Amino acid sequence: MAHSSHPAGNASENDVFDLEGDTLQEECGVFGILQHKDAAALTALGLHALQHRGQEAAGIVTYDGQRFHSERRMGLVGDHYTDPQMLEKLPGDVAVGHNRYSTTGEVALRNVQPLFAELSVGGIAVAHNGNFTNALKLRREIIAKGAICQSTSDSEVVLHLIAQSKQQGSAARFVEAISHMEGGYALIAMTRTKLMGARDPFGIRPLVLGDLDGAPILASETCALDIIGAKFVRDIENGEVIVCEKQEDGTVKITSSKPFAPKPERVCLFEYVYFARPDSIVAGRSVYNVRKAMGRNLAREAQVEGDLVVPVPDGGTPAAIGYAQESGIPFELGIIRNHYVGRTFIEPSQQIRAFGVKLKHSANRGQLDGKRVILVDDSVVRGTTSTKIVQLVRDAGAREVHLVVASPKITHSDYYGIDTPDPEKLLANQYTDHDEMCKFIGCDSLQFLSVDGLYDAVGGAPRDPKNPQFTDHYFTGEYPTRLVDLEAENGPLKQQSLLREAG
Amino acid sequence: MAHSSHPAGNASENDVFDLEGDTLQEECGVFGILQHKDAAALTALGLHALQHRGQEAAGIVTYDGQRFHSERRMGLVGDHYTDPQMLEKLPGDVAVGHNRYSTTGEVALRNVQPLFAELSVGGIAVAHNGNFTNALKLRREIIAKGAICQSTSDSEVVLHLIAQSKQQGSAARFVEAISHMEGGYALIAMTRTKLMGARDPFGIRPLVLGDLDGAPILASETCALDIIGAKFVRDIENGEVIVCEKQEDGTVKITSSKPFAPKPERVCLFEYVYFARPDSIVAGRSVYNVRKAMGRNLAREAQVEGDLVVPVPDGGTPAAIGYAQESGIPFELGIIRNHYVGRTFIEPSQQIRAFGVKLKHSANRGQLDGKRVILVDDSVVRGTTSTKIVQLVRDAGAREVHLVVASPKITHSDYYGIDTPDPEKLLANQYTDHDEMCKFIGCDSLQFLSVDGLYDAVGGAPRDPKNPQFTDHYFTGEYPTRLVDLEAENGPLKQQSLLREAG
Amino acid sequence: MAHSSHPAGNASENDVFDLEGDTLQEECGVFGILQHKDAAALTALGLHALQHRGQEAAGIVTYDGQRFHSERRMGLVGDHYTDPQMLEKLPGDVAVGHNRYSTTGEVALRNVQPLFAELSVGGIAVAHNGNFTNALKLRREIIAKGAICQSTSDSEVVLHLIAQSKQQGSAARFVEAISHMEGGYALIAMTRTKLMGARDPFGIRPLVLGDLDGAPILASETCALDIIGAKFVRDIENGEVIVCEKQEDGTVKITSSKPFAPKPERVCLFEYVYFARPDSIVAGRSVYNVRKAMGRNLAREAQVEGDLVVPVPDGGTPAAIGYAQESGIPFELGIIRNHYVGRTFIEPSQQIRAFGVKLKHSANRGQLDGKRVILVDDSVVRGTTSTKIVQLVRDAGAREVHLVVASPKITHSDYYGIDTPDPEKLLANQYTDHDEMCKFIGCDSLQFLSVDGLYDAVGGAPRDPKNPQFTDHYFTGEYPTRLVDLEAENGPLKQQSLLREAG
Amino acid sequence: MAHSSHPAGNASENDVFDLEGDTLQEECGVFGILQHKDAAALTALGLHALQHRGQEAAGIVTYDGQRFHSERRMGLVGDHYTDPQMLEKLPGDVAVGHNRYSTTGEVALRNVQPLFAELSVGGIAVAHNGNFTNALKLRREIIAKGAICQSTSDSEVVLHLIAQSKQQGSAARFVEAISHMEGGYALIAMTRTKLMGARDPFGIRPLVLGDLDGAPILASETCALDIIGAKFVRDIENGEVIVCEKQEDGTVKITSSKPFAPKPERVCLFEYVYFARPDSIVAGRSVYNVRKAMGRNLAREAQVEGDLVVPVPDGGTPAAIGYAQESGIPFELGIIRNHYVGRTFIEPSQQIRAFGVKLKHSANRGQLDGKRVILVDDSVVRGTTSTKIVQLVRDAGAREVHLVVASPKITHSDYYGIDTPDPEKLLANQYTDHDEMCKFIGCDSLQFLSVDGLYDAVGGAPRDPKNPQFTDHYFTGEYPTRLVDLEAENGPLKQQSLLREAG
Repeated sequence: MAHSSHPAGNASENDVFDLEGDTLQEECGVFGILQHKDAAALTALGLHALQHRGQEAAGIVTYDGQRFHSERRMGLVGDHYTDPQMLEKLPGDVAVGHNRYSTTGEVALRNVQPLFAELSVGGIAVAHNGNFTNALKLRREIIAKGAICQSTSDSEVVLHLIAQSKQQGSAARFVEAISHMEGGYALIAMTRTKLMGARDPFGIRPLVLGDLDGAPILASETCALDIIGAKFVRDIENGEVIVCEKQEDGTVKITSSKPFAPKPERVCLFEYVYFARPDSIVAGRSVYNVRKAMGRNLAREAQVEGDLVVPVPDGGTPAAIGYAQESGIPFELGIIRNHYVGRTFIEPSQQIRAFGVKLKHSANRGQLDGKRVILVDDSVVRGTTSTKIVQLVRDAGAREVHLVVASPKITHSDYYGIDTPDPEKLLANQYTDHDEMCKFIGCDSLQFLSVDGLYDAVGGAPRDPKNPQFTDHYFTGEYPTRLVDLEAENGPLKQQSLLREAG
Repeated sequence: MAHSSHPAGNASENDVFDLEGDTLQEECGVFGILQHKDAAALTALGLHALQHRGQEAAGIVTYDGQRFHSERRMGLVGDHYTDPQMLEKLPGDVAVGHNRYSTTGEVALRNVQPLFAELSVGGIAVAHNGNFTNALKLRREIIAKGAICQSTSDSEVVLHLIAQSKQQGSAARFVEAISHMEGGYALIAMTRTKLMGARDPFGIRPLVLGDLDGAPILASETCALDIIGAKFVRDIENGEVIVCEKQEDGTVKITSSKPFAPKPERVCLFEYVYFARPDSIVAGRSVYNVRKAMGRNLAREAQVEGDLVVPVPDGGTPAAIGYAQESGIPFELGIIRNHYVGRTFIEPSQQIRAFGVKLKHSANRGQLDGKRVILVDDSVVRGTTSTKIVQLVRDAGAREVHLVVASPKITHSDYYGIDTPDPEKLLANQYTDHDEMCKFIGCDSLQFLSVDGLYDAVGGAPRDPKNPQFTDHYFTGEYPTRLVDLEAENGPLKQQSLLREAG
Repeated sequence: MAHSSHPAGNASENDVFDLEGDTLQEECGVFGILQHKDAAALTALGLHALQHRGQEAAGIVTYDGQRFHSERRMGLVGDHYTDPQMLEKLPGDVAVGHNRYSTTGEVALRNVQPLFAELSVGGIAVAHNGNFTNALKLRREIIAKGAICQSTSDSEVVLHLIAQSKQQGSAARFVEAISHMEGGYALIAMTRTKLMGARDPFGIRPLVLGDLDGAPILASETCALDIIGAKFVRDIENGEVIVCEKQEDGTVKITSSKPFAPKPERVCLFEYVYFARPDSIVAGRSVYNVRKAMGRNLAREAQVEGDLVVPVPDGGTPAAIGYAQESGIPFELGIIRNHYVGRTFIEPSQQIRAFGVKLKHSANRGQLDGKRVILVDDSVVRGTTSTKIVQLVRDAGAREVHLVVASPKITHSDYYGIDTPDPEKLLANQYTDHDEMCKFIGCDSLQFLSVDGLYDAVGGAPRDPKNPQFTDHYFTGEYPTRLVDLEAENGPLKQQSLLREAG
Repeated sequence: MAHSSHPAGNASENDVFDLEGDTLQEECGVFGILQHKDAAALTALGLHALQHRGQEAAGIVTYDGQRFHSERRMGLVGDHYTDPQMLEKLPGDVAVGHNRYSTTGEVALRNVQPLFAELSVGGIAVAHNGNFTNALKLRREIIAKGAICQSTSDSEVVLHLIAQSKQQGSAARFVEAISHMEGGYALIAMTRTKLMGARDPFGIRPLVLGDLDGAPILASETCALDIIGAKFVRDIENGEVIVCEKQEDGTVKITSSKPFAPKPERVCLFEYVYFARPDSIVAGRSVYNVRKAMGRNLAREAQVEGDLVVPVPDGGTPAAIGYAQESGIPFELGIIRNHYVGRTFIEPSQQIRAFGVKLKHSANRGQLDGKRVILVDDSVVRGTTSTKIVQLVRDAGAREVHLVVASPKITHSDYYGIDTPDPEKLLANQYTDHDEMCKFIGCDSLQFLSVDGLYDAVGGAPRDPKNPQFTDHYFTGEYPTRLVDLEAENGPLKQQSLLREAG
C-alpha cells in the first residue's frame, strides 16, 4: 500500500478502474491561524502540506474584522487556493481551513468544510478530522427540538450544540458542545476573535499547536508548521480544548480546559503506519523513524533470506530502509513509480484498464532478474494491489518474492475517521489460512509485523493488554470507546441523512 | 430594454463591461411536480422554459421513495440538467426545481435553491421566487432561539419556521410558517409525499397550477406547462396555500387554505411589462396581448409622426407591433440582434469595450437611412442603454428618432424580488426636466406610457387610487405592504448575513 | 428554417439530437485590414459581425513588422478573441481573420483558417469562403510534383500554387494562383505589406471593400464594416483580384486585375434567401428589403386566406413582414424563440430529446388558438423541422396552418461552399406529389415562392433562362461552372484527403 | 536536479514562478507499432511510459486500412489517450505516437507531432526526438524550390525531402531523406503498410526495436516495451534505417540499411545522467545500475565525511544508494517530496511564491537535525534549485551540508534535442572559482563527478580523448558533428520561422 496522488475511495474494485483503491483513506486535515495578516495564504500552504490527508476538496474561511469569507472547492489546494484572485477573496487575519477526502457532485460540495453558521453570538466556522460515534443520536435529538440539518456532515451537529448551549460566550459554548461529542476527532473552530481546538478524550486523531511570530496555529501535523517556518509549540493533549483569543492590546491569550473525565492518551497507530507524512512528528515521535523501526523489527521477526530489499513506493520506503539496515541486505529501487499518474486515467478503456498497476509502477528488471526479492509494504488492506505488485516483480524475472508487511493484519473496521472496506473484504478475514493467503498474493512467503513489534517500534514497549497504549482496534478488535450510533443501528453508519450523497 | 441572454446583475456600469446591465432582474423561477415517473426531466424542461426568470444557477431536488437527491449548479438549465447522467442522479416521482439570478463563487452555490433540510417530520425542500420583507426580523428571532443559519437566503427562514412549528404534519407546519411571512413571493415545497405551494397575500409574484396526466404541477408561468404539454388548471390565488398529497390508492389529493387575512389581488405590473414570457398567461391575461395593448395605448397617447415603428429587440417587439397596428405606421426590423452574444465577452479588452452595444445590436441601415424612426422599448431603467441605441439608430442615418416607452417612468425601488438600481441612478430621478432627459437620451422626442394607459392595457380600466388593482410602487411609490426590515434598518437590505456574498 | 445560434452540421438526423440540423450551412466569413494599429481587435469585431457565416472555429493572423502571429481556436469569436491577453498575442497593423463552420477535434483545428505558409517571397496567410471545384485535380498535380499536403483544406492548394508560381512578387503570384482556381469563392490573403482579395469569375460568394480612416478592409458582408464604423467603398467585382499595398510614404496603393475571361455576375441567391445578415447590403441590395420583397411576392402568388401571418423566427421574419404588408393580414409573433438554447443540449437524455423543437420554440397559444395561421419560413431543406413547427402551431389550437416558403423548392446539391444534404434527403426530392408533401409536413396548404418570384424580389426581373442573372442551381439544377472534380470522381467530393476528418 | 512532473521550459527564472525550471529538458519520446489490432491503445501505453521525455503534448496517428486518423493534444497522455472515445477515433493496426516538451497556444498545437502529409506515394506520418543541425539550411533550399512550410518543426523538412525524393516507394524515399539529415535524432515514420525508424550516425538519441506477438515496435526506451509486456529485440544501431513492412501473408518483413558513412556509436551521456527512466536499458546498460555506479565513483572521488547520505528526490536517489553502499554511510530520506505538486501552482500569488521549493520538497527534520549531510543530486544546471535545497536542509538543523553531484560541470549548450539555458547562465560558467561556487550554493563542500568517473560508470573505461566513446559536449565542449545552421547563422537557432511561436 503506497501513498497516493489520487484517492479513489468511492471506487469499488469491480466497477471502476482503480489505481489507488486498495488503501485506507482518512478523511481530513485541518489548519487554523489567528492574528496574522497573511492568514489565508498561510492556511493554503498548511493545507498543501496536509494534502495527503484528503485530496478531493478543500475550504478556507476567514474573518476580516467586518465579514466572514468562505471559499470551498473540489480539487487540490494547489488547484485553487494559491491563485492571487482567490486569496483576495479571503481577506482577514484569522482563518481556518480543511482538506477533505470526499465524493463528487453537489451534495459533496455542500458537505465540504469548514462549515459556517451565524449564531446569536456571531459567526462561527468549524472544521474537523475524525468521526463522532454518537453524532446520529445527537442529530436526532437536535432535530426533534426543531432544528434543521442541511448537510450530512457530523460537523453540523457541533454547530447546533454550540447554538443551543446556554453558556455565555462562544468559548464556553464550544467547550460545552465538545463535552457531548464521543469518538475520535481533532476539531478546530474560529469566531471573529478566537481560534479554538479540541482533541478527543483518547487523542485518537492528532492536533498540534504552533506559533509564527506570535500568531498561534492549530494543525493536524507538524509538516504544516514546517512549510511556513512556524515553531512547534506542543501537541494539544487528549481531551483538551484550547482557546486562543485576541486581546485588545494586540496579544493573544491562550487558555485550556478539559471537559472530559481524564483518560490515557491512545494515538491511532495508523497515523504512524500510513497516514502521517514521514517528516511529521506525531505525539513526540518522528514518523519516519517509527517506520524505519517498524522495518527493523520486521527484519528481526521475519528472518527471510533474500538478495535485495525492495520497497513498494512510496509508502514502504522508510520501513524498507530500516529492514535493509537491520538485515544487512541491500536496499534497491526494484519498483519505479510513474509520477505522471495524476488525476487522469479516471475511466480508461478496457484495453488500458487491463494494464492496471503497470500504469503506476514499473519493475526495474535490471535489478530484479534472477534475484530473491524481499518486498516491503506498509500495510495490506484487501490484498488486491499486493497481488499485482508481486506479479509485476515476478514478471521481471525475480526468482523468489517475499512480501513483508510493516504492520499487523487488519481485521476490523474503524469508526474514528478512517474509511475501511467492509470487514469481509479485508484480506485477513478472507484467508485465515496463512498458506492460502500467501497463495492468493502469489508470493513465496508472507510476513506481517506483530502487534508487539509495532508497539515496540512506536512506543518502545510491548502492548499492555489491560491498558493498550495506542488505538489499535483494526488489528485487535478492541475499540477504545463505545460506539453509540453503531449499537443503536446495529449496522454500518455511512449514511446519516435522508439526503443521499451524490455519486 | 430587451430580454437578455446573459444576466449581468452583478455588473456596475462603471467597472464592468455590461451588455445587459441596464435592465431590471427578477430573482427566480420555480417548478414542482408530484407523482410522475419523469419528474426530474419534466422539471428540467419546465426550468428551461422559465430560464428568462434567472440564468445564473439552477437546482433540482427529487425523492425516490427512499432518499432525497439534490443537484444544484451554476449556469443554465441546459448546461447541466438535460444530460442523461445528471438525470440518473435525480430519480423519483416528485421533484422541485429553481432558477436563480445570482452571483458567482462558492457562497453563491451555497445559496442556490432548492434548499433542503431534514426535519423531525422528514426531509423537505423549498424553492421560492420573490422576497420576504420581514425575513431579517424573523431570522434574528430564530437565531436568538438557538438555531443556526447557514445561508444568506431568506428561504432558510421558512425552513426554520417549519422546523419550529408545533403543528402536526408537514402541511400544517408549512401553512403556519407561511402565515409569518410578509412580502411578495411564490413558494413551493416538497416532502416525501407532498408538493406544496404558496402565494403572498397580494399575489405579487405569479404561481400557477397545472396537470399532466393526473400529476399536479406548480410553476411560475404557464410557459413551463406548455413545454411539457401539461394542462393549465388555474392560478394559485393570492394568499392561498395549496397542498398536493399522494394517496395510498395512487391518486393525488389537493387541498387549499388561506392563512392570511383576505386581501385584493395585486399582481406585479412588471411581470406584464418585462419579466414574464410573452407566450405566458399571467392572471388570466396573455402577456403578448397585454404588451400589444401597451403599444396601442402608447400610440394613442404619443401621437408622434414617423415613417417606421422599430422595436428594440426583443423586449420591445410586441408593443411595437401594437403601436404599428394602432398608428398605421409600418413595423420594420430596424435593429438586428446578434444572436452570438452568449456568455462571452465577459471581460473584453478596452478596444473591444468601446464598441459596446454594437456587439449585441446592429442598425439596419437600409431601413433607417433618412427616415423618421419611432423606436419602441418596453421600459427604461437607467437610460444608459437607450442612449446607445438611439445613437446607433442615428448613426445609421435616421432623420429623427422618437423613443416611445411602453411603461411609465420608474422612480422607486422594489422589495419583492426585483433587483432595482439605487433610486438615484434611475433615469426618472436623475432628470426631472423632460427636455433634459430627452437630451440625455439623445432623441428628438421621448414618451412614456401613462400609469392609466398601462392599467388599461393590463386590466381594462384606469388605476383606482384607493385600491390600486396592481402592484405598481416602482412607478407610483405606493408599496402594497409594510416593509418591516427596511423600517427597522433604515436602509437597504441587500445583506442579511455576516457572511459576505462572494464576487 | 431559421438562423441558428448553434450549428449542427456534423449532426445527422438519426443519431444526434439536432435543434438546428435542418438548415443549409455555409462555410465561412472572411475579414482583413491593412495599416491600422488595432488590426486584430477590428478583425475580431468584424468576425463577430460575420459569426452567422460560421460558428465553430475562428482564426486571426497578424504581422507586426517582424513576425507573423497566428491564433486559431474552436468556438465563437467572442469566446476567445475579445480577451485582452489574446489581442496582445496578435500585435501588428495588418490582419486577416476567418470564421469557419467545421467539425470537432484535432483535424478540425488543423484545418481552421487562416492558413499560413512561409514561401521564398516571405510569409503569407490565406482565408477563404466558398469551394474550389477543381481543388482535388490541382492537389493531385501538386503532390505529384513533390509537394506535401498537410491539411484537407482546399485553401492549401492556393498556397502551393503561390509557392510554385514563377512570377516575381507575391501579388503577381497570387494573381497567377487565382487564375487556376475554379468554383465559387471569396478569398483574402495577407503578406508583410499587402492585403489581397479575389472573387470568383461569377461572383458567387460576396466580398466587399471598405475603408476605415484610410485603412482598406476586405470583408464578406457590409455588416462587418458597420460594426466598426467603416465606410463601404464598393463590392469586389466578379473575377476581380484586388491588391492593397503599403507604400513607403504611409499611404496604401490599391490595384486591381482580372485574370479570368469576363463573365456576367451571378451572385448566389442563397445569400439573399438565408445566409447574409438582414442588415447587410449584398451586391447593392439590402438583404432585409429583398426578403420583404420575397414575402410580398409570395403573398401575391399564394393568395391564402388566413387570420394571422406568423414568422418562423428569426429567418422567416422579414418575409413575414413583407407578406403581412402585401396581404393586409396582421403580422403576429405566434412562435416565441427561447434565447437560452446556446451551445448546450448537445447530448440530452432520451426523455429530453423527445421534446425536440419545443426547447427552442414555443407557441404563443393566446395568438394561435382558433386561428387560421399563415406560417412564413425562409426555406425548407429536408422538411423535418417544418413538420415539427407545424405540429407545434397546431397543438396550440390553430384551426388551419398554411406554410408559405419564401424561396423555391431545393432540388440540387451545391458545390460552391454550401453544405447541402444528400439530394435524396431533400424534401422536394422525397415528395414529387404536392399533396403528399403537404401531408408529410402536416399543413393545410403549402406554397413555395416561384423562381421568377424570387428573381423579381432580388433583381426586379424574371429569370433569363439563357443568361440567368443569379446562381440558382439548388433550385434549377443549372450550375454556373464546370464541376471538374465531381466529373472526374463521379461522386460526391466531401473528402479530399486520405486523412479522415475527425468526429 | 530531479525528475519533474511539470515542465517549465518556457519559464524564465525572473518572471515566472518555477518549481522545475532549473533542469535540462529533452524534447520527445517516440513509439510506433505495426500489425497489432490494439495499435493505438498500445501506443498510448508506450507514450505513458515515455512521459518523462515530454509532458506538454502528445499525438497519435493510425491507419485503419482505408484512412489515416490523427489526434494530437496538449497535456499528458493520460489526460486524453486512455479514454475509450479517444481510442475509437484511432482505429487501425499501425500507429505512431509522440510525446513533446513544448510551448502553449495554437502555434504549439500546430507543431505537435506526429506530422502527417499526403504524398504521391500515399500518406506518411513522422515523429522524431532530437534535433537536425542542418534543418534550417535544408528548409531554405526546399522553400526556394517552391515548397511551403507550415510549421516551425524541423520534422517538416523530413516530410519535404521524402516528397521530393525521386526514389521509388516510400521506404527508399525515407532512406534518401534521412541521408541528408545531420544532428542527433531518433525518428520513426509510418505509411499504410510500413513502420520505419532511423537513428543518427552517432546514435546520440536512443531507439530500440521490440516485438509483441510478432508485431514490431520502435520506441525511445525499453520501459515502453516493458509496460505492454513486449520483448526487447535490439537497439537500432547508430546510422541505421530500419523498415518493417506488412507482407501479404500476414507476416512482417524487417529490412535494414545504413545510408551514412560508418561512425562509432556515441550515445548521449545525459540519457544516463538524467533523461532515461531508471528501469530502461540504454545501449545495453541498465540506467539504474549506471546511476548507482556514478554514485559509487563519486564516493571514491569525493571522500567526504558525513553522517547521512541524502538524495535530492527523485533524480538523485539511485546515485545516493550507490554512494551509500560504497561509503558505508547510511542512506536516509532526508528530503520528502510532495506528490501533490502537479500542474497547479502555475501563477501563484506573491505570498505563495515566496515559499518556493518548500511547495515541492520538505526537510525531514528528525533525520537532519545536528547531522553532517551528504546531499546527492544527479546534475546541476544553473544552481538555483541547489541553492534552495541546501538552504532547506540547513534550516532543518543540518550541521554540515556537502553537495555531491553525480555528473561533471555543465559548460556548453546542446544542439541535439536538449533544451539548455544560455551558456552564461550555467553555474559552471558563472563561477570559475570553486570556493565562490560553493559559497553561492551555500554548502560546506561541493564535488562533481569527474568526466572519467562518469565514463567509467557508463562504459567501464576512462574517456578516450581521440575517439570519445560518448556524446559529452555539454561537459567538454567537443561536439560530435558539424553544426551547419549554427555556423551559418553565427548565433542560436531557436526560431526557424517567420511565424513566431506563441507564448
